[in-house]
This record gives sequence, structure tokens and C-alpha cells, in this order.
Amino acid sequence: MRKIGLKEIEDIALGAALLGAGGGGDPYVGKLVAIGAVKECGEVTMLSVDEVPDDALVVPIAMMGAPTILSEKAVGGNEYKTLFEMVTRFYNREIFAFMPIEAGGVNSMLPIAAAARLNLPLIDADGMGRAFPELQMVTFTIGGVRATPMALVDEKGNSVIFDTITNKWTEELARSVTMSCGGSVSVSLYCIDGATLKKYAVRDIVTRSEKLGAAIRTVKQTTGKTPEESFFEFTEGYKLFKGKIVDVLRETRGAFNFGKVVLDGIGEFKGQSADVEFQNENLVARVNEKILATTPDLICIVDTETFTPVTTDALKYGKRVMVVGLKCFDMWRTEKGLELVGPRYFGCETDYIAIEERCKQGEEKHV
Amino acid sequence: MRKIGLKEIEDIALGAALLGAGGGGDPYVGKLVAIGAVKECGEVTMLSVDEVPDDALVVPIAMMGAPTILSEKAVGGNEYKTLFEMVTRFYNREIFAFMPIEAGGVNSMLPIAAAARLNLPLIDADGMGRAFPELQMVTFTIGGVRATPMALVDEKGNSVIFDTITNKWTEELARSVTMSCGGSVSVSLYCIDGATLKKYAVRDIVTRSEKLGAAIRTVKQTTGKTPEESFFEFTEGYKLFKGKIVDVLRETRGAFNFGKVVLDGIGEFKGQSADVEFQNENLVARVNEKILATTPDLICIVDTETFTPVTTDALKYGKRVMVVGLKCFDMWRTEKGLELVGPRYFGCETDYIAIEERCKQGEEKHV
Repeated sequence: MRKIGLKEIEDIALGAALLGAGGGGDPYVGKLVAIGAVKECGEVTMLSVDEVPDDALVVPIAMMGAPTILSEKAVGGNEYKTLFEMVTRFYNREIFAFMPIEAGGVNSMLPIAAAARLNLPLIDADGMGRAFPELQMVTFTIGGVRATPMALVDEKGNSVIFDTITNKWTEELARSVTMSCGGSVSVSLYCIDGATLKKYAVRDIVTRSEKLGAAIRTVKQTTGKTPEESFFEFTEGYKLFKGKIVDVLRETRGAFNFGKVVLDGIGEFKGQSADVEFQNENLVARVNEKILATTPDLICIVDTETFTPVTTDALKYGKRVMVVGLKCFDMWRTEKGLELVGPRYFGCETDYIAIEERCKQGEEKHV
Repeated sequence: MRKIGLKEIEDIALGAALLGAGGGGDPYVGKLVAIGAVKECGEVTMLSVDEVPDDALVVPIAMMGAPTILSEKAVGGNEYKTLFEMVTRFYNREIFAFMPIEAGGVNSMLPIAAAARLNLPLIDADGMGRAFPELQMVTFTIGGVRATPMALVDEKGNSVIFDTITNKWTEELARSVTMSCGGSVSVSLYCIDGATLKKYAVRDIVTRSEKLGAAIRTVKQTTGKTPEESFFEFTEGYKLFKGKIVDVLRETRGAFNFGKVVLDGIGEFKGQSADVEFQNENLVARVNEKILATTPDLICIVDTETFTPVTTDALKYGKRVMVVGLKCFDMWRTEKGLELVGPRYFGCETDYIAIEERCKQGEEKHV
């Protein structure tokens, strides 16, 4: 048990932007929501998964929709209270705590705001260990946990409860409503008991975000190594590419941000080219036409100077960036995991090969 | 209080097809559902509005979506039970009775099936006195009654509860889900207490449907007048046109059936032409380019021989039909009523003029 205040929020937001793997929306927007709530209602108590009683009801809080739209719409002050009341009423029992469903961007921040406003603890875990674009893409789905009953509210005050036969149907129906509500809404789903949480949650992910954020913030203060060396040391990441953005293709379709960014190499990558495809999150990184990383491993794009994560929304012509690969949570590498979030699900015609394998093959070739 | 059995269902279905004003879907499909339920579970007790205690909870049951699609999908046996449980759970109180929300076609039948299966009474009333295509188009909206909480289930077992800020938002969100569920679903909405029901319901509409149905069934058995004379006597309708269908334009868009039927006059209308536009229900009837009737008055198309109502789904080239106008429920003719269901709402560039006025003007011109 520890407290999450303004300083922690800054670091969590920064680290979660990296774990967002390009998605999850502008962390700045989410941060403002969390900071506003904590300033008004006080710090949030964060518990580890082991501190949750087996029979306690834990309720994930998130926004659903295209992050590009979220940053143009406010999150209403009463949305979490409405979600709280809907879930309490549906289950007819007390909510023990809130948690994030994904570690990326805005959705790492909103549960903090909700916890502050409703004076509930926050659990140090999520269901992805990163961000993913569709709501069935959580470890809980692997564990057979149902997304529903799912509560949805928009900033105008409309609310909906879904109870569906599969998590894919939840995605289908909730996505329709999200679009009708203007493209972004607040939701509670995968309400889960402590015992199941302990089996399937990605543990300590808020703490990991915070540590990553703190490290990025202080990356230039380390002595004895370059900021870049320091960055790769604490992220345990793979340097996939470094380049200048020469093209960004972008399309908002079905409440998703689809697109592709094209890079011309700089530094040691001079003369080479790369591209990264995304659906909210980065899906595939290709260097010189060769795939170096695919979902579910994390493909992160960071600024070459500050190492600040760059979301797909913020990709701009001329920007100098580094493409970084991070290993995903183990459960995603199982057969069931890859069915949900492997490259083929997203229409990429390649099998999943773990990033460490792909990069090793690359090195062998370079030799 | 009286019993609704198989004989009553036959007549109600036939009369409700007329009140459907072209919409409400194939009455045959609805009839099969109601007959199946009554055969399995017994006759239904029907109560008049005055027999409902002021504080009793009355729950309308309907299908939502394009009737064309409904006739290709079955209504699952458990849908009403699910709706019953959802509403009971939401209100945490007992349901006193079911009722139809519209008198037209399928939706006049499904509440009978629901009442039989759940062993609840049926109330002899609806919220339209006819059929309309959108869910906010009920007298209850005029009375400020909220459509939500609205329960929705599909035949696969997905279910949704809506709670919206306006009835137009209910339409918007529920329509999205209906489309995602394949175009037709079962719903409960405008759950209402007895006191409000007494103020805004269209009373005795099931009985009226039944009488209309019985009269159509026996139209050729009356002595001393032609079947046509007899038909206009009991319907108190206006004969707008009689002709052969020479064109039907049809389009399913946004879970609605849009279209237009064009007629060449026969009998006393020989040499004249007419057309009727529809959105699920018939909206405007024009004879020789002159509007003779518009929504919310009922524009019904019936077979010239049998006087059987012809729904917009069943309009076919070559069919000989009569276009009949019926006065709508008084409340629709108020300013608030016309805002909801007047011709301008449906994009028809004309003010509402009561059918008896339009037809009188026509007669004067003929003189």
C-alpha cells in the first residue's frame, strides 16, 4: 500500500505513454484529468494485487474510442460516479477498488482520477501490460473472464449496460454505441474478483510505468553512459531504428486511428528506411522491408533527444524518432494470447516471432 | 378483464395490420409467435387501462429494427424472459403487466406472446394507436415519460440496458446496437406506472384492432351493402385511391425500410395516378400530385378484393390495392405531437393538415 500523488502521476503518465506503444492517446490529456481529481479530492491509495481479498470486487475504468477524439472532448466530472453507481447497482455489492484495464496513455490516468473522486483504492495491475485497440484484448479474456456486465457513459449523461455472449460481441456493440455517442466514452468492464485478478492480472504495472517515467525524466542525469545507453538499460528494449519521419498516413475509421509512419534513417541507420503500421497502437515495425517486431510485443516510438514517447497521434513530418521494441507480457505469447492479439488478428500476414528472436536473426545477418 | 385466445389473436393480427399503416412487419410472423406462446402456455388475461393500479409497473414489449429482417430471423424463446428479468432487476420491483407500445403488425403480437410466456396480464392500450418507425414516437414522449431504462436483447443472447438523457438519444443508441445485432432485436421501454398510463395511453387499441380484424374477416358477409361500403363504414376511413401497383422503390437503410409505391388508377380512379412514400410506415399519399394524407394520420393500403392490409414489405408490381386514410389519435394533432411525428419530421415539405380537411378540400375542387 502506498500513496499516489501529483509527483507519481507525472511519472506514471510518462512511463505509460511508453507502454502505450503509440496508442492510448495523448498522455497530457489524461494527466490533467488525474491531477485535477487528486488536487480536488486528495491522493489515491494504491494496493498491490496481493492486498486484494479473494472475494473483493475490483472494477476497471477506461475510456473507449479513438484517442484523437477524446482529446477534443472533455471527460465529464460525473462520469465515474455514474459508472460506480451502475456497477454497484448491477452487482448489488460494494466495489472494493478501481484498476486500469490498460497501461497505456489516457487509460493509465483515468482510473487514478476515478479512485480519487470516489475515494476508493487503485490496484497496481492491468489486463494488458501495454495498450491494445479492442476491448476483448485483455489477459482476462484468456482466463475466460467476461467483459460484461460492462457499463458505459458519455459526457452528456447517456449510459448503457451491456451483457453479451462473448467479449467480441461486447466490442462490437460497445463500439457502435461509442461511435453514436461521438467517438469516445467512459467504461467499466471486466469487473473481477480478487482471486481471478491474482491469476490473470499483469501485476505491478503502475509501478513499472512510474519507474519507466522517472527514468525517462532523468535520462540525461545519469553519469558514465550516454542517455541512449541509459534508456536501453532501464527499458530493456531493442533499438529497431532511428530516423526522420518522412510520411504519415492516417485515417479515423470505425472509431479507430489507422495509419502508417515512414522513416528515413539517421545516425547509424543512415541510408536505411523503416515503417511502422498502427491501429491506435503500433502493430508492425519493418526495417528495410524486413519485419523486426510485431504485436503483441511493444513497438514504441520515442523522441531521439528527450526519449519522450511519441503517440501515433503526435507523429509529424520531420520529427526525429527512435523505434524501440519491448517484450510483451508472457501470457500474450501463448496460443490463446496470439489468437487475441497476434499479428494475423490485425491482418498482418506473418506469424508471431518473439522480438528477441527477430532481432537475433537480424544481428546474425549483420555479421 | 377478458381472455385473449387463438381466435382473438387472429382478429387482432388482422386489425393491427391495418393500424400498422404499412409498417410493423408481416403480421403473419408475429401471429405465429403469439399463437405458439398461447398454445404452449395458455390464454392471456387482458385488462383495460382502468383496471391497472396507479402504482403498478407496466412494461411495453416490442421488436426494434427493420421488419423485413425480422421475418428472416426467429424470435428466440427466451428473449421475453430475459427482458422480464432485466427490467425486474433494474427497478427492483414486480412487473404488473405487459403492453404493446404500438398497435401495428408484429408489435401488436409480441406482447401477447410475452404475456403468455411470463403468465402476466396484457393491457388493452398502446402508445401510438398505430405504428411509427422511431422509438421516441409515442404519446408517452409527449407526456415527458422517458423511454429508458430500456432493455434490449437479441436472439443470440446479447442484452443491453440504456439510460439516456432524451428519448431521441435512446433511438440513436438503441438503433446502433440493433444494427450491430443484425437488424432486429426485442426490447422493453417506456416502463410506466398505472397513473401515467391512464393519462397518455391510447386506450382499448387491442380491442379496436380485434374489431377491425373481425370486420375485415367478415366484410363479404354483410348484407344490404357492398363489401367496400361495409369496409368504410366500420373503419370510418377515407377512400384516397384505388389502383394497380406499377412501381415499388425500396431501400433498407439504417435499419429502416424506405421507399415509395406508385399506382395507376382503376375503377373510378381510372386515368389518375398516385404514390405513397414510406419509412417502415406510409408517410404521405399523393393523388395526381396532390397530397391527400400525411403522417400522423394513418395511410393504409389494402387489397381491393379481400380488404386485407398490405404492408410495405408486401407491395408487389401488378397488385390491385386501395389507399385508405384513417384519422390518427387526437394527441398526435397537438403541436408537441406534430413535432414528433408530423410530416416535416420525416423530411416531407408540407404542414400537417388533418385528413378530413384535406379530403374536404379535394371534394370542393371536384365540384
